[in-house]
Amino acid sequence: MSDDALVIFTPSGKRGRFPVGTPVLQAARHLGVDLDSVCGGRGICSKCQITPGYGEFSKHGVTVAADALSDWNAVEERYKSKRGLLDGRRLGCQARVQGDVVIDVPPESQVHKQVIRKRVEARQITLDPTVRLHYIEVAEPDMQDPSGDLERVAEALHAQWGIAAVTCELPVLITLQPILRKGAWRVTVALHQVNATDVPRILHIWPGLYEDAVYGVAVDLGSTTIAGHLCDLRSGEVLASSGLMNPQIRFGEDLMSRVSYSMMNPTGAAEMTAAVRAGMNTLFDQVAAEAGIDKRLIMDAVFVCNPVMHHLFLGIDPYELGQAPFALATSDALRLTARDLGLDLHPAARVYLLPCIAGHVGADAAAVALSEAPEKSAELLLVVDVGTNAEILLGNTEKVLACSSPTGPAFEGAQISSGQRAAPGAIERVEIDPATKEPRFKVIGCDLWSDETGFAEATASCGITGICGSGIIEMVAEMRMAGLVDASGLIGSAEQTGSDRVFPDGRTHSYRIFDGSATGGPTITVTNRDIREIQMAKAALYSGARLLMDKFGVDKVDRIVLAGAFGAHISPKHAMVLGMIPDAPLDKVTSAGNAAGTGARIALLNRSTRSEIEATVRNIHKIETAIEPRFQEHFVNASAIPNAVEPFPILLSLVTLPDVNFNTGGGGGEGEGGRRRRRA
Amino acid sequence: MSDDALVIFTPSGKRGRFPVGTPVLQAARHLGVDLDSVCGGRGICSKCQITPGYGEFSKHGVTVAADALSDWNAVEERYKSKRGLLDGRRLGCQARVQGDVVIDVPPESQVHKQVIRKRVEARQITLDPTVRLHYIEVAEPDMQDPSGDLERVAEALHAQWGIAAVTCELPVLITLQPILRKGAWRVTVALHQVNATDVPRILHIWPGLYEDAVYGVAVDLGSTTIAGHLCDLRSGEVLASSGLMNPQIRFGEDLMSRVSYSMMNPTGAAEMTAAVRAGMNTLFDQVAAEAGIDKRLIMDAVFVCNPVMHHLFLGIDPYELGQAPFALATSDALRLTARDLGLDLHPAARVYLLPCIAGHVGADAAAVALSEAPEKSAELLLVVDVGTNAEILLGNTEKVLACSSPTGPAFEGAQISSGQRAAPGAIERVEIDPATKEPRFKVIGCDLWSDETGFAEATASCGITGICGSGIIEMVAEMRMAGLVDASGLIGSAEQTGSDRVFPDGRTHSYRIFDGSATGGPTITVTNRDIREIQMAKAALYSGARLLMDKFGVDKVDRIVLAGAFGAHISPKHAMVLGMIPDAPLDKVTSAGNAAGTGARIALLNRSTRSEIEATVRNIHKIETAIEPRFQEHFVNASAIPNAVEPFPILLSLVTLPDVNFNTGGGGGEGEGGRRRRRA
Repeated sequence: MSDDALVIFTPSGKRGRFPVGTPVLQAARHLGVDLDSVCGGRGICSKCQITPGYGEFSKHGVTVAADALSDWNAVEERYKSKRGLLDGRRLGCQARVQGDVVIDVPPESQVHKQVIRKRVEARQITLDPTVRLHYIEVAEPDMQDPSGDLERVAEALHAQWGIAAVTCELPVLITLQPILRKGAWRVTVALHQVNATDVPRILHIWPGLYEDAVYGVAVDLGSTTIAGHLCDLRSGEVLASSGLMNPQIRFGEDLMSRVSYSMMNPTGAAEMTAAVRAGMNTLFDQVAAEAGIDKRLIMDAVFVCNPVMHHLFLGIDPYELGQAPFALATSDALRLTARDLGLDLHPAARVYLLPCIAGHVGADAAAVALSEAPEKSAELLLVVDVGTNAEILLGNTEKVLACSSPTGPAFEGAQISSGQRAAPGAIERVEIDPATKEPRFKVIGCDLWSDETGFAEATASCGITGICGSGIIEMVAEMRMAGLVDASGLIGSAEQTGSDRVFPDGRTHSYRIFDGSATGGPTITVTNRDIREIQMAKAALYSGARLLMDKFGVDKVDRIVLAGAFGAHISPKHAMVLGMIPDAPLDKVTSAGNAAGTGARIALLNRSTRSEIEATVRNIHKIETAIEPRFQEHFVNASAIPNAVEPFPILLSLVTLPDVNFNTGGGGGEGEGGRRRRRA
Repeated sequence: MSDDALVIFTPSGKRGRFPVGTPVLQAARHLGVDLDSVCGGRGICSKCQITPGYGEFSKHGVTVAADALSDWNAVEERYKSKRGLLDGRRLGCQARVQGDVVIDVPPESQVHKQVIRKRVEARQITLDPTVRLHYIEVAEPDMQDPSGDLERVAEALHAQWGIAAVTCELPVLITLQPILRKGAWRVTVALHQVNATDVPRILHIWPGLYEDAVYGVAVDLGSTTIAGHLCDLRSGEVLASSGLMNPQIRFGEDLMSRVSYSMMNPTGAAEMTAAVRAGMNTLFDQVAAEAGIDKRLIMDAVFVCNPVMHHLFLGIDPYELGQAPFALATSDALRLTARDLGLDLHPAARVYLLPCIAGHVGADAAAVALSEAPEKSAELLLVVDVGTNAEILLGNTEKVLACSSPTGPAFEGAQISSGQRAAPGAIERVEIDPATKEPRFKVIGCDLWSDETGFAEATASCGITGICGSGIIEMVAEMRMAGLVDASGLIGSAEQTGSDRVFPDGRTHSYRIFDGSATGGPTITVTNRDIREIQMAKAALYSGARLLMDKFGVDKVDRIVLAGAFGAHISPKHAMVLGMIPDAPLDKVTSAGNAAGTGARIALLNRSTRSEIEATVRNIHKIETAIEPRFQEHFVNASAIPNAVEPFPILLSLVTLPDVNFNTGGGGGEGEGGRRRRRA
């Protein structure tokens, strides 16, 4: 009988021969099998649970005898009685190989777990966090051979975990001595490491075995809102998501007014920096409270933001971003500490900011690229992150182009007469009957349409207060499809349209969606000026995408992803009717939700994606719309609202687009968007 | 005629052939000749001044023609007219090689200047600071190819100085954009780098060419005093030295009372940390004011201190240092930032703390080792750093041992009845006539002896107030030599000694040095208790040295260096009479002054000494006196005051040591120190 046994691990399929008596954990490590352990094989952490298989495994060509592993032992029994262990499970550090065996590593015992993402087309996240736990037994101090406690911790990490060198920052060093003694020289160390070449950093030390969660936070720092996801770095799970208004709003609604504020006020940039950092700390309080955790266990934080927010968050005056050539102070990714930025997290917490792509295309766009991975797409992918500025990416495995387009705040309901932020009471969905020109709509906070029974009661508390960004887009598109608006964007008169909801309003006309005056509520209308605002915004967006297509040398794209918190609510059909985005098959237009936030979460949960996105960003071709004559050209041509959406038979069968033109003068007219039908 | 010319540099003697037309600076760089340049050869910084030699150089076997270098050019003329240039000097970047030439690099044009040290036996300091200046021309931002300003600075450093990568901390990054524009894309960058493998760090950026000083500070953080030296990192010069009382004194005079304070008060350690850091900032203000510089140009700081001060400065509770096994939180050298420690220097200033040797032998002892370099000494060298604790090093090229000995504060004038700190009015030198038993003395602040004409007038303003540390040592030694004190340390009565300055004082006697009562001044005496205090202190010191000699396996040492601010004032003769230090030829006993401060300055001015001292400290054998039975044995035996100092015929010829013994009982008696005569 041989003294070696064949050990096969599933699902990896890794296999090798080991001497009888080898602990399963040791065999797994030897083969590079992904089997977790915090205690390093001491039978106390239970992270190395495995499920041995017995009987015939024809696929692997082995038969596993009932005694292929050593007997269930006292350590396992104690663990099971105290903390429970599923039937059939063993502790990999206790069970020793006795004969040929097939061993399954359940998902929860893998370090590199798959983190669940909802969208099927989204890239999967493999958990590989920057922070890991290591239980160690530290030598006690010896007067005969004096050495520092930290140096003996480093020796233990070397001897027990093969970690050659570590560093330790002052806030952690200060805690070291009492913790070592409290743990009777047995402690668990949290190490932070991004790249394999980095010297790992001691972030925290616990007395004894600590195998609970450590946390990270992924933050999408937007001009208007700040959204954070609190993640368990050991499971990859999102424990809490929260958001708040960016407190900088009081210095200016949009980015350029904040840049102006900093130009006009000597301490303006510093005030805004303090405001956004304070807001960040509020956010951390919120997510920590929601998850019921101590925010001082948040040890890693990833931030994505546009360039102006990036600079203001860092304390850099955004002056240069307000004028050509829009130079960033720094474009590379940044590795900082929470202390550097006045963030109230773990005192040694690390901070990572994704790289900026260009002066108008920030780390948020880089995060979208990380989430949507155009550089890995065989199809030509157009990614549009719709917000106050639209960031646009176009690419495939061959190359990726990026630009930013100044859409302005109309898509967020700002500068719209009845516009408002997305909040309960805001109209978010609209349909207009092409025959009667009568609208029906839905408001945020109510699942019923306005013509359904019970709508009035259901909306009694929130009221019907205005139109949010997605509502105005649907509204304009529906008005166009119902023949209330012509291709140039003019609202026809009551006579021209046959709708008594249209009324003269200065030199143009407006359309009344809702009249709440009887009950003291607002009258909600769409003015011709509103339509102009949307036309400008959508033209900017469309022109940016077209410019990238020109640069790429293509006339069409294979797939479109709408990103941004707002992008999540845009109806692809209406976006295309409006001419916001280039033509693409409707089933190839999807929403990625807050892709920037997702990108931040990916960078938080998988450390190797950080160097990946840094490399991707270096290879992205940046296009500055401001100096591209073709952008202006596209913009001028793109203000029209197309009167047909040919690529979508489904749409054409649904709506009959009237070929009306209410333009009484010679101006306006059909632009590029409008020409599409003629090209068909 | 050859197109190559022979270029010989002096004083290095480096030589090589270069094409005609090669700038001298380029030839120097090619040969690795130490020729400075900040501007990188653009003819604007003038750091590369050289002196060409003409005529016959038989030593080098060349004759240099008058046209061996290109003609004096407009750049040199402009520089000379604006800022002056010595006759015969050329700018190395302007003068081009035309024929065989001998070129002298004057000391001020060398990067690695020798820094002057006064003591001939002291190790020389070669200037090699962590901070260097580099003038660069940075590419302007380009919208066609957007990149961050920092990334273009990095590219310029790479292209123009061959520096592959740099990092930049947030406080510097914040200043980058306006400075680049103010300098019209020409800036000077200060880079910090310790080891060749470190990525250089941008510490500061100036618009245009900056070739003035940048500063560093070397600090000896003592329990009682904090002393700092402000150095010009470009010349190595000490611009200001200043000191202040350690503000922690209010928490306890000696280290152990401060440790106790932290044990008794929950916020005690934090209060002491805040106090010492505030004191440090006061010190920086003082040295900056003295030198008339902006303290925010201090970019590097080196600290040496004993372990308790080390921990309190870092914010680590010194609790563990107050009890066996005296474990340090960390013993390795520390690389920190001024911000980490709340130090008000340049916002990106770096901080370096030398390694600690053991729980009782701190970074100050490491600094003494760096200054005195026992590991490089062929002779067996005993280095004694005399302070409240004495740190003792013994070694040669073979090995180095270290220990700490608890001498207590008696050597600093504390716990002495008429003791006081070294300040004007304190008796610092004493002589007692062996025949008349009458003393003469000198006080700090007056160059006259007390029996010289004009002494009373000269000391009228400061008064005669007490005895400082060096005074009490001389006093006790002189009393012993004059037969006023026996070998056991007892003061004889007036009858026994024949001196009416001796008077009964409780159960023993005291000796009156000075009676100022007639003019309302103090009466200064030495009590028998004072002598006991000195005996205890000197026994501790002597026992530590003896213990190391035992461990080394030797009976004598070749050379003794007394270090410490106080060591500078100890008379070697009296120290040996007292039995403070082991026997050694008197001309082999020298004072190193504040060697710890010098070590700090060496580490500040020459970056490569940092890894050197770290390696030295790793190799030092640490001896913990507290657990060495032989230490106690030596201590018990060493309290006697030797009644002869045989190795010094010079002393024996000067004084006749009476063989008195005033001990009326059976105790006390002659110990190890006293046995020395009998061994002779």
